[in-house]
Amino acid sequence: MLLKDLGERGVISRIRRQWAGGGHGVVLGIGDDAALVRGPKNLLITTDLLIEDVDFRQALHPPRLLGRKALSVNLSDIAAMGGRPLHAVLGLALPGATELAWLEAFLDGFREAARRSGVALAGGDISASRQVMIAVTVTGKAASVVPRSGARPGDALFVSGTLGDAAQGRKLLEAGHRPGEKGAAGRLLRAFLDPSPRLELGAALAGGKISAAMIDLSDGLSVDLAHICEESGVGAEIDLGRIPLSPALRRLSDDPLDAALNGGEDFELLFAVRPANLGRALALGERFKITRIGRITRDTKILAVDAAGRRRPLKIKGYEHFR
Amino acid sequence: MLLKDLGERGVISRIRRQWAGGGHGVVLGIGDDAALVRGPKNLLITTDLLIEDVDFRQALHPPRLLGRKALSVNLSDIAAMGGRPLHAVLGLALPGATELAWLEAFLDGFREAARRSGVALAGGDISASRQVMIAVTVTGKAASVVPRSGARPGDALFVSGTLGDAAQGRKLLEAGHRPGEKGAAGRLLRAFLDPSPRLELGAALAGGKISAAMIDLSDGLSVDLAHICEESGVGAEIDLGRIPLSPALRRLSDDPLDAALNGGEDFELLFAVRPANLGRALALGERFKITRIGRITRDTKILAVDAAGRRRPLKIKGYEHFR
Repeated sequence: MLLKDLGERGVISRIRRQWAGGGHGVVLGIGDDAALVRGPKNLLITTDLLIEDVDFRQALHPPRLLGRKALSVNLSDIAAMGGRPLHAVLGLALPGATELAWLEAFLDGFREAARRSGVALAGGDISASRQVMIAVTVTGKAASVVPRSGARPGDALFVSGTLGDAAQGRKLLEAGHRPGEKGAAGRLLRAFLDPSPRLELGAALAGGKISAAMIDLSDGLSVDLAHICEESGVGAEIDLGRIPLSPALRRLSDDPLDAALNGGEDFELLFAVRPANLGRALALGERFKITRIGRITRDTKILAVDAAGRRRPLKIKGYEHFR
Repeated sequence: MLLKDLGERGVISRIRRQWAGGGHGVVLGIGDDAALVRGPKNLLITTDLLIEDVDFRQALHPPRLLGRKALSVNLSDIAAMGGRPLHAVLGLALPGATELAWLEAFLDGFREAARRSGVALAGGDISASRQVMIAVTVTGKAASVVPRSGARPGDALFVSGTLGDAAQGRKLLEAGHRPGEKGAAGRLLRAFLDPSPRLELGAALAGGKISAAMIDLSDGLSVDLAHICEESGVGAEIDLGRIPLSPALRRLSDDPLDAALNGGEDFELLFAVRPANLGRALALGERFKITRIGRITRDTKILAVDAAGRRRPLKIKGYEHFR
């Protein structure tokens, strides 16, 4: 069945049935003009668009994973503030010729990601379009927020996970590899198709006041580090040899360092730690994969340090949507 | 200049400069992973999509009015809950070949509507697309919320303003009339291009606990009344002769009643009032244009009553996005 056979109200009532019972703090959910929820005093709000043929290819991205990703990229923003996600609203613009099965799988994935992170769907909007567009807004709360602007000279710089996998996964997908593959290619594909928001790490860093500045790596390390430096009025040095690269990326990429620096979509956390908190940050390494990759400097330049100790300006090169 | 010349980050920094100073209760605004705002305990959230060639034509809708409308349609949802709007986040997907002047005018309009209603832009996202897509999410607060589900048999039904103007305005636009026209056509065009959210009326009805159920007329009176009846488990009778029609609509529409019943996009309020509150509702008529158009019934049918007192089932016919 196609969406145009079911009709707009048919689609909405299906979504509503699936989410019956609301969730944590949802007083009035789907089915009113606006949702009424219990809001925290310190309210986080973030929104992200996923656009067909820009952020994903409908034929290549399994809809269940796309549904998960649509929420996960927003959860990653909440994680980067050190917050806990609360509610989501989902805006969906779809061609009338979309298969209902596609939408159902998308919603299954969205619900999985919501359940896993304790997020309640509070409402949404649905419309027709020629190109699939997904607009998700997520609220959250944070006892202690970690902004981009808190880095100071002398802070240590850390990242979570490994970098560049998602960018290489995207390349593999475009080159004909398919989700479900085993081995190294499969791992890289999954990094792109189904990223994991680092909510627990973000909350641990914020709750313990361990990180002074934080951002999630959506544009690529070089661009996102530049954001931290710009907002904080500082510079940084990155030790290129310390950037965490997965064995899969090393095996399948011609230039793993370029993927890690400029690839984007890793949805890992980049954070700055004061010297006094370094011990506690390193101790988090027992629970989370984190790597110290450099330091914040007073000079506002951003430098890359190679194995021989040579410093060169880091090329700031990220994904540009408008082309 | 085109957006692709300015680049994504150039666009964002322009928006950020224009909104410098944040607004009411915005602690961290544009420029972080998520916005941090002061949230109320009773938090309203609503989201609306405007899609090119579905909800508007880029060549026919002046961008400044489109920017106003993108916020206004969300404000109308907050009004329908009896709330006061607080914050907005703006998701914009635009072709790279969009003129910067178009975006600037759009943002001017968005800012006008925000200033007028006391809304602060907390954040957003921007992406590329083939088709313009606008996704706005608005938060609000409400001391006393008016749901769709509160109508009971015996309640009187009221609407604000006049109905059908926007639908006829849309038709005139498609037929070659142009914004800026004087007289009747101009009034109808403006109703479609630049609707006014009924925030003050909604707040007065909610604050005084005058309305028991409320909805904004976005799909058309027949569909939106059906929503109230369905959510409340009741029926209704509408006196066709009482539906408020503007002189402009009567002059320029072949079937003004059809436009009023099924046209949609009026963004007026439809609300139910208990008999005990009828006097106070009628007294609001001194400050607001409101019209009593019918009553809520126990029988779940929705009937239209003509001038001769004959009752017939009302045809529930609204705008369908998927075609």
